[in-house]
Amino acid sequence: MTAIKMLRLDGNAADFEKRLQARLAWDASEDLEIHKRVLDIIGDVRNRGDRALIDYTNRFDRTAFKSGAELELSSGELKLAWDTLPSAQAIALQTAADRVSAYAEHQKLQSWQFTELDGTLLGQKVTPLDRAGLYVPGGKAAYPSSVLMNAIPAKVAGVGELVMVVPTPGGETNPLVLAAAYVARVDRVFTIGGAQAVAALAYGTETVPAVDKIVGPGNIYVATAKKLVFGQVGIDMIAGPSEILIICDGQTNPDWIAMDLFSQAEHDENAQAILISQDAVFLDKVEASINQLLPTMERADIIRASLTGRGAFIKVADLAQAAEVANRIAPEHLELSVENPEALADNIRNAGAIFMGRYTAEALGDYCAGPNHVLPTSSTARYSSPLGVYDFQKRSSLINCSAAGAHNLGKIASVLARGESLTAHARSAEFRV
Amino acid sequence: MTAIKMLRLDGNAADFEKRLQARLAWDASEDLEIHKRVLDIIGDVRNRGDRALIDYTNRFDRTAFKSGAELELSSGELKLAWDTLPSAQAIALQTAADRVSAYAEHQKLQSWQFTELDGTLLGQKVTPLDRAGLYVPGGKAAYPSSVLMNAIPAKVAGVGELVMVVPTPGGETNPLVLAAAYVARVDRVFTIGGAQAVAALAYGTETVPAVDKIVGPGNIYVATAKKLVFGQVGIDMIAGPSEILIICDGQTNPDWIAMDLFSQAEHDENAQAILISQDAVFLDKVEASINQLLPTMERADIIRASLTGRGAFIKVADLAQAAEVANRIAPEHLELSVENPEALADNIRNAGAIFMGRYTAEALGDYCAGPNHVLPTSSTARYSSPLGVYDFQKRSSLINCSAAGAHNLGKIASVLARGESLTAHARSAEFRV
Repeated sequence: MTAIKMLRLDGNAADFEKRLQARLAWDASEDLEIHKRVLDIIGDVRNRGDRALIDYTNRFDRTAFKSGAELELSSGELKLAWDTLPSAQAIALQTAADRVSAYAEHQKLQSWQFTELDGTLLGQKVTPLDRAGLYVPGGKAAYPSSVLMNAIPAKVAGVGELVMVVPTPGGETNPLVLAAAYVARVDRVFTIGGAQAVAALAYGTETVPAVDKIVGPGNIYVATAKKLVFGQVGIDMIAGPSEILIICDGQTNPDWIAMDLFSQAEHDENAQAILISQDAVFLDKVEASINQLLPTMERADIIRASLTGRGAFIKVADLAQAAEVANRIAPEHLELSVENPEALADNIRNAGAIFMGRYTAEALGDYCAGPNHVLPTSSTARYSSPLGVYDFQKRSSLINCSAAGAHNLGKIASVLARGESLTAHARSAEFRV
Repeated sequence: MTAIKMLRLDGNAADFEKRLQARLAWDASEDLEIHKRVLDIIGDVRNRGDRALIDYTNRFDRTAFKSGAELELSSGELKLAWDTLPSAQAIALQTAADRVSAYAEHQKLQSWQFTELDGTLLGQKVTPLDRAGLYVPGGKAAYPSSVLMNAIPAKVAGVGELVMVVPTPGGETNPLVLAAAYVARVDRVFTIGGAQAVAALAYGTETVPAVDKIVGPGNIYVATAKKLVFGQVGIDMIAGPSEILIICDGQTNPDWIAMDLFSQAEHDENAQAILISQDAVFLDKVEASINQLLPTMERADIIRASLTGRGAFIKVADLAQAAEVANRIAPEHLELSVENPEALADNIRNAGAIFMGRYTAEALGDYCAGPNHVLPTSSTARYSSPLGVYDFQKRSSLINCSAAGAHNLGKIASVLARGESLTAHARSAEFRV
């Protein structure tokens, strides 16, 4: 096995920006053939409802459902999965759920209002979504932690009904996933997946109720379907490959840093793991750790492909420069493995989640620290946020004018409306003057 | 001129749901030809930068720009527009700006954090976007109020730089729009528009800086371009036609209600104005008012087309039923023209903005009440919110584990990671146990 040589970039080189952008580049362009097939499936589910949903499910998941009713799992089946879980897993799942829930409580938006001197009331009313849909992948990528992370913020927000879909390829359910759905108090579970499940959640069928928003990860068919139903329903982000960026001052055990890089790299050949340090000798040490630890890893092939294809070591002059590079990258996960992480965090503007200090492995955040593991990827942390309770709430503006308020505001509105040649607006306001 | 006969729906008829949905249906399907042309423009601006931007601008806007520098308006030009504004308009604009700003201050998200017993810190850090772009239409649809509504939340959020683009067809600028940009403290203004302006904001050119998010209304080319650059940058909603839903108990002056319906209908033939009442006689009175007032309106043709093509009167049994119909429609603007609007508002879950009481004309909210006039349309109020300060802020999760915290959490993470066969995750956590 050849040793891994990490791509080295120098933050002070003239071509640094260009080389960095080349390494970050990620082609998320659409596959038009998939686009077309997904459009067909959505159209068919809209037209034929359950019949289409059952046809696609039986074809793609090799199942033999005959009626819509067979697609739903009973609450008893969820409870059974929970009751028969080995106790170490049950305790870990419950502890994680409790911590994610406790953190999420801090995110709840509250309604507010205030009254002006003339008696006019202004405010903002916050309400939960009536119904949300949660997509959970089946097969290999079935992650119970993902069920918790997507379901709990919805429940904390007070969503009226939370509907989960999870495909059961070959008819096989995943007990850990069902147990997680039980712990997270998911209301209804349907054993469907793919674009057909997204279409069913967006438009409803005889069996599956239409929801207001769909969240959760999925393959390219699911992601494409979510994009295509957006507008009919809300969606969460479309996630790119997972990313970790570590800033280390050179004083952390290089094995720890190597394993933290692995923990993202093992997700996927396209995952991106980058280390920044002002200490070139330390970068060499981490490379040595990588090569020493790699042969012991179960997913060594994936890790190797990720690190050699998309990984990088960046040498910078100091931590201030490291922070600026991090802000340009805007990573999904950012570890600050340094002596004074608070000071460094003050300089970070763009990152999905910030893991501070040598003890805070990114993996803790993936499972049980409390904050959500659904985070903005592909530099979208420049403008978007982790999944949270606020994604399952929405706001309505409140305006209640007193007679005096309508008089005062009406005069202003009239001037501005006439400036825009919208005379019905003006006259509507003037009626109240 | 033939009298307008409003479409009448009965909330208790067997076919009500079907007829209501037919009236609400709005086809927002893409025009593939436009899609392709916009893709070409975006690709060209990415490749050729300023040269492409100048070429398209000169072609579409009939201008004769030669260099990138000519595309930017100086701050002196903005100030001049403001200084030469008639004083009634200046006062109205400043008052509106002050009120929108005061309301927006209430929306600012704050960072928070808490420390657990074992010393582990969890929190959420809120930061403004580094740079935002604001699209402002030129020509007929140039609305200074729209500049205020889009720019002020960004400035209140603390966005580092706010870049506005506005086309100048035939080289003509709109003094009211420039004055509004001055009042709203927009940082830079470029005289470009269309898909080429969106592409320039998303990817940057030699002259136009790349932004993190693009907001603001535009025609089908602008809307398509925004959809296509989404991901590279954030975008606000893609707005459908404007809508008003009025619930009236029959005790408001029918002329007021007719004019309020007009105030949305005058925007656009596709705008939707709907009135709900439990009082059938009142519906007749409003129809009479409509026919009496319509000939006096400057935009009578647009209003007529909107009311006959997409308007409706809905007769319900009582106000409780009216609220449920409103929740199903999830309107952009909802007027509660009733005796006790507070009680009725308690039953409203889905609406962009709620105008409470007989004095609160929707037009007041369009200009100067304070809440934003950029609101979710086409039933998207089921899951989305008015434009606000929060659209120009983003959150980063904070996790700082103590040694004891990493020990406790590491054990849980290890169990869950091994349950998902992610052993690098498990070992990364175990290193800290």
